[in-house]
Amino acid sequence: LVRAEGIISSVSDVTVLFSTTHLLDFLEEPIPGVGTYDDFHTIDWVREKCKDRERHRKINAKKKESAWEFTKSLYDAWSGWLVVTLTGLASGALAGLIDISADWLNDIKEGVCLNAMWFNHEQCCWGSNETTFAERDKCPQWKSWAGLILGQEEGPGSYIMNYFMYIYWALSFALLAVLLVKVFAPYACGSGIPEIKTILSGFIIRGYLGKWTLLIKTVTLVLAVASGLSLGKEGPLVHVACCCGNIFSYLFPKYSKNEAKKREVLSAASAAGVSVAFGAPIGGVLFSLEEVSYYFPLKTLWRSFFAALVAAFVLRSINPFGNSRLVLFYVEYHTPWYLFELIPFILLGVFGGLWGAFFIKANIAWCRRRKSTRFGKYPVLEVIFVAAITAVVAFPNPYTRQNTSELIKELFTDCGPLESSQLCQYRSQMNGSKAFVDASPNKPAGPGVYTAMWQLCLALVFKIIMTIFTFGLKVPAGLFIPSMAIGAIAGRIVGIAVEQLAYYHHDWLVFREWCEVGTDCITPGLYAMVGAAACLGGVTRMTVSLVVIVFELTGGLEYIVPLMAAVMTSKWVGDAFGREGIYESHIRLNGYPFLDAKSEFTHTTLAREVMRPQRSDPPLAVLTQDNLTVEELQGIINETSYNGFPVIVSKESQRLVGFALRRDITIAIGEEKLRRQVVGENAQRKQGDILLTSRVYFTQHAPTLPADSPRPLKLRSILDMSPFTVTDHTPMEIVVDIFRKLGLRQCLVTHNG
Amino acid sequence: LVRAEGIISSVSDVTVLFSTTHLLDFLEEPIPGVGTYDDFHTIDWVREKCKDRERHRKINAKKKESAWEFTKSLYDAWSGWLVVTLTGLASGALAGLIDISADWLNDIKEGVCLNAMWFNHEQCCWGSNETTFAERDKCPQWKSWAGLILGQEEGPGSYIMNYFMYIYWALSFALLAVLLVKVFAPYACGSGIPEIKTILSGFIIRGYLGKWTLLIKTVTLVLAVASGLSLGKEGPLVHVACCCGNIFSYLFPKYSKNEAKKREVLSAASAAGVSVAFGAPIGGVLFSLEEVSYYFPLKTLWRSFFAALVAAFVLRSINPFGNSRLVLFYVEYHTPWYLFELIPFILLGVFGGLWGAFFIKANIAWCRRRKSTRFGKYPVLEVIFVAAITAVVAFPNPYTRQNTSELIKELFTDCGPLESSQLCQYRSQMNGSKAFVDASPNKPAGPGVYTAMWQLCLALVFKIIMTIFTFGLKVPAGLFIPSMAIGAIAGRIVGIAVEQLAYYHHDWLVFREWCEVGTDCITPGLYAMVGAAACLGGVTRMTVSLVVIVFELTGGLEYIVPLMAAVMTSKWVGDAFGREGIYESHIRLNGYPFLDAKSEFTHTTLAREVMRPQRSDPPLAVLTQDNLTVEELQGIINETSYNGFPVIVSKESQRLVGFALRRDITIAIGEEKLRRQVVGENAQRKQGDILLTSRVYFTQHAPTLPADSPRPLKLRSILDMSPFTVTDHTPMEIVVDIFRKLGLRQCLVTHNG
Repeated sequence: LVRAEGIISSVSDVTVLFSTTHLLDFLEEPIPGVGTYDDFHTIDWVREKCKDRERHRKINAKKKESAWEFTKSLYDAWSGWLVVTLTGLASGALAGLIDISADWLNDIKEGVCLNAMWFNHEQCCWGSNETTFAERDKCPQWKSWAGLILGQEEGPGSYIMNYFMYIYWALSFALLAVLLVKVFAPYACGSGIPEIKTILSGFIIRGYLGKWTLLIKTVTLVLAVASGLSLGKEGPLVHVACCCGNIFSYLFPKYSKNEAKKREVLSAASAAGVSVAFGAPIGGVLFSLEEVSYYFPLKTLWRSFFAALVAAFVLRSINPFGNSRLVLFYVEYHTPWYLFELIPFILLGVFGGLWGAFFIKANIAWCRRRKSTRFGKYPVLEVIFVAAITAVVAFPNPYTRQNTSELIKELFTDCGPLESSQLCQYRSQMNGSKAFVDASPNKPAGPGVYTAMWQLCLALVFKIIMTIFTFGLKVPAGLFIPSMAIGAIAGRIVGIAVEQLAYYHHDWLVFREWCEVGTDCITPGLYAMVGAAACLGGVTRMTVSLVVIVFELTGGLEYIVPLMAAVMTSKWVGDAFGREGIYESHIRLNGYPFLDAKSEFTHTTLAREVMRPQRSDPPLAVLTQDNLTVEELQGIINETSYNGFPVIVSKESQRLVGFALRRDITIAIGEEKLRRQVVGENAQRKQGDILLTSRVYFTQHAPTLPADSPRPLKLRSILDMSPFTVTDHTPMEIVVDIFRKLGLRQCLVTHNG
Repeated sequence: LVRAEGIISSVSDVTVLFSTTHLLDFLEEPIPGVGTYDDFHTIDWVREKCKDRERHRKINAKKKESAWEFTKSLYDAWSGWLVVTLTGLASGALAGLIDISADWLNDIKEGVCLNAMWFNHEQCCWGSNETTFAERDKCPQWKSWAGLILGQEEGPGSYIMNYFMYIYWALSFALLAVLLVKVFAPYACGSGIPEIKTILSGFIIRGYLGKWTLLIKTVTLVLAVASGLSLGKEGPLVHVACCCGNIFSYLFPKYSKNEAKKREVLSAASAAGVSVAFGAPIGGVLFSLEEVSYYFPLKTLWRSFFAALVAAFVLRSINPFGNSRLVLFYVEYHTPWYLFELIPFILLGVFGGLWGAFFIKANIAWCRRRKSTRFGKYPVLEVIFVAAITAVVAFPNPYTRQNTSELIKELFTDCGPLESSQLCQYRSQMNGSKAFVDASPNKPAGPGVYTAMWQLCLALVFKIIMTIFTFGLKVPAGLFIPSMAIGAIAGRIVGIAVEQLAYYHHDWLVFREWCEVGTDCITPGLYAMVGAAACLGGVTRMTVSLVVIVFELTGGLEYIVPLMAAVMTSKWVGDAFGREGIYESHIRLNGYPFLDAKSEFTHTTLAREVMRPQRSDPPLAVLTQDNLTVEELQGIINETSYNGFPVIVSKESQRLVGFALRRDITIAIGEEKLRRQVVGENAQRKQGDILLTSRVYFTQHAPTLPADSPRPLKLRSILDMSPFTVTDHTPMEIVVDIFRKLGLRQCLVTHNG
């Protein structure tokens, strides 16, 4: 009847390693070193929570004793708020810094401000007296490189000169970025969100959120954005914020000493990161809740909200864009949308889903290629290569030359009377260079619009291709902005197409009742926004948080329905091709242990079929509770590679007593050896190390031993008296639920005890 | 060594009742009746989820078979979205209906529209040609009762007449409401949120969300609001929405047959309820997440959001308030707030916390009184009594006479040029009856303001007292609006005080740099809003959701910081007096089983100390797996009152095999009896019912029996082969975690198996 118990090496590839030792009985002093984690190991949530409750209880108990203890308890109670406040402040400040310096470096590619080097193009021209918007871009203070070197602004020579300088700066920025990353902080590359998801799910990657990573990531992020590569700074901002959270959490023992509590801070930090990335505090909280967080108690919700707000306010007071907005592309539309428009919106959703699925497949394939083939050996060359291609192709096309977020802004904003962009040159008034349009009526498109269409189509193809190769390079690279740009371009094209359709065929049934001539019924900018949301949704598979983020960008409830329609369509279309978002795919690609809380798990097997060892395997190594010697114990440890051993009553009746860990046992024996050498027991007797022959027992009382036998070694303190057990008939889905919800490390399978 | 296993009757007072029978082995046909729940029992989340996965797997398996099966699977996949859409539509429509009819009934108390009975005061006067705002209230079409009956609008006689009619209508509405509730749907009383929290946590209250409750609650809610009692319709709207969700879920087997899935719909419904109550879709989702929901997967988040939006749009298209807003009190402020103002805001927070704590204590004490003493026997009289007092006291004071939401609106809105209310009669221009003020500068208060102050103070006291006695009456009664009103009054008073202070002492240090004469630096309306949020937070202890709700009311990020400061202060002050909010207190008062997911649980005990039976108790009744006869089994069942019995190997080696349920056993034996009577086994032999003597076995194969013994009864199908077990050394906090996160019904405590 008796069957050996087995350890389920968890379904989530969590390496079975470390047991819950929440029952170190506190009579004996706990052995130092027990209860810490190695690098690249998963934490035990249950145990961490118990540790925290224990600490909390101690503090409460001592609180009454003295005023000093009371203040300490107060400090402890407030540390949670302090740390999120500090995190919010830091992330807001860093975000502002990054925005400003990225703008400046980005403009350096094109020219320089004569009277003040450190001004970017816009700031440089603020002082100028050409205040008309068409003329705004050319002010005397701002010299393009051609103008500076050749002394002439126009002509093919200067064009080539600018072209050359553009490429030169782009390459040097990219080179500097990749070198910095390679030399100082290899962890600083990529968007960081997959790793943060993994860390939040309980994995430990030392140094991933350290100060070096923070420093290098901040610098290289600016360089990477400025180098004109097809990447964004939004994703890495989350990583930066998490670094801040991690660093500040070291100021508070409550968080630095407890991995689970630290992850609460990180959840709040990621919320702050998104909040500054998109100027969407609520969206940030929902992002942290929906996308990255694993264990998200309500207290964390509240603190994340607070951190997100603080960060947003710091950023607003820094005011990096000079528009008193948190983000460059904040828009307000004034015309409502009509039911018929849902059709193009849903089409955009389909496009977004297709793009997302295609991008994930292509990008993952490419990254795998890079990992496998020797081509991945030369990250620096790769970056230079990609940057060169990007720069060469990007420069001729104004829509790819300019900063991506500026592109998105231009695509989002509707054609108002003050819009000078090519996109708004409608035919009604092509008189003179200034293309002023009064917002309201739909107009037939002018040549400017048509050229813009072509350039946008080219830009679309270009961005689609480059993004696939860029995401995954060894530089900080975010995915939000490129995806949004692609979607915005597609959306704007569709929008203008519909607009022209409505203008020329306003007698069609679909347009007739709501779109007469001279009325403004179609808002191309709205299409761009919907497309951006759809593409972003297709890539990341975010839903609520994404809609809320974009809702906070537009600040109008009216447009939520189009957004939801598009985002949901894109998610469904994308899921049809593959259920994982880009982040899950990269987690899988890098082989991090991550048990997705969202994915539905549909095993029909029972625990007995999954557990190890199977009947075919050699039986599991078990320890008996009171008749092993240290020598036998060490033998078992050396022979087997298991990380823990079930302790049973005796070989005859194999009933489970508890669970003891390899790591703890070795530490304990080492300790004991030291102590005995100090006491000098070995010296007293002649034969060598008597420790080996002495008995080990896990029971409460020492077993009866023959008189001359050496002093037995009591290991009850490292014995986990309450291992999680399931019967061998438990269905796997329940086991997975237990692992997922309690955050276990391992689970023992028993048959009739 | 062997100790009897015990059943932990869960720490949450969940009556240990029903085990997870997810292992009915599907070879035998499941016995009908197994797996349903009785009324007032808790569901088993684990089992429900397994059932759903099983169903899902079946559908997926059959999907390929035929086109019909495929459509069925599609229908199944979409039913989730369908049901939330329907719920959203219904709740939005009902909310609009309730708003409109409540307004109308409310105005009936004062007078009637001559040319159209069914118009309320405002609609009646829309047609009139007195378009000035001061005159708006008196238009010829609208006749007060005195004007109608006595033929004169002015004078003491007519005043008394109106007074009388007011009381008359109030009493009749209240009487009608309480009678309807008492006769038709007793569940329709109260706010319903405590019960919904309990239901969402897995409790079953049949008929609480039924169609009768829905109907009666909708009608009586209108009456109760119109009767002028100090209550609001926001809380009950959540109940109404949940009724809709529950009713619609019966259209879809996926939800009607599975209690856990049904609760997902209810979560979405409660989000929709708050969304229509406050016009805050995102706030509604967060409310459902933070306040009411227990098990909230991400899919539910997404659907709740959708339901909330649908409901909001339906309500907006109904446009009950004629301002194209979702709520009556939607405001927009234009002046920023200054750092110094945080002091009064925090003071308001303190006030809110104190009020919350006081209200909870007083209200609970009163309700307990009502329960215990014979005074609770006459709910109708009580309602009449309270309604009478309310009406008598309320009429003379304009601020208590008017509808509470209108009062809140008036308090929230800042004094603009178009404000005709007494609150805005500042001294600068008291010329003539019209009190026009241009918004910007702070003015010295005129006599109107001072009288308003006094009336507001009286109203404050009045509302505080009446609300305590009103909440808990046998009529639908929401708590949001009264609390907000109290907070708004207090806030407005403080606001005007600060404003006057700033006006008269603008040379003080605190005011000097930012508040000169003739500038508009203080916004009393903002104070009112902050106070409202603070009081609501003090009573309900909501945090994020509350802030987001109010944020959606104002629609400006700027004011989130004051709101957060106030709400957090009120929460902390309130928690200092008692940790639970009004809903938790009422749950406890009514003795519903509810394991709060939020409350930190700080037991230091071990499972062995909590489990039943204790050593002192009689040992637990256990079943052996193969040597019981039906007679013995029935004997055990009749003697004991346990709802389930652990099945062990044998009396000698008491190792756990599984867990069998009283309910299942009885059902199974009954079945068997029937079957044997059909087969007619009893007829064959002479002696009576041989079933009693036949052996019962839970093992896979029948035990060997003497030849002449009757056919044994196999009960393996009702045996739960995978009961949740913990060792007797498990700390209680872990056990509680398990109960909380897995939603267990019971848990077996084992010692060495």
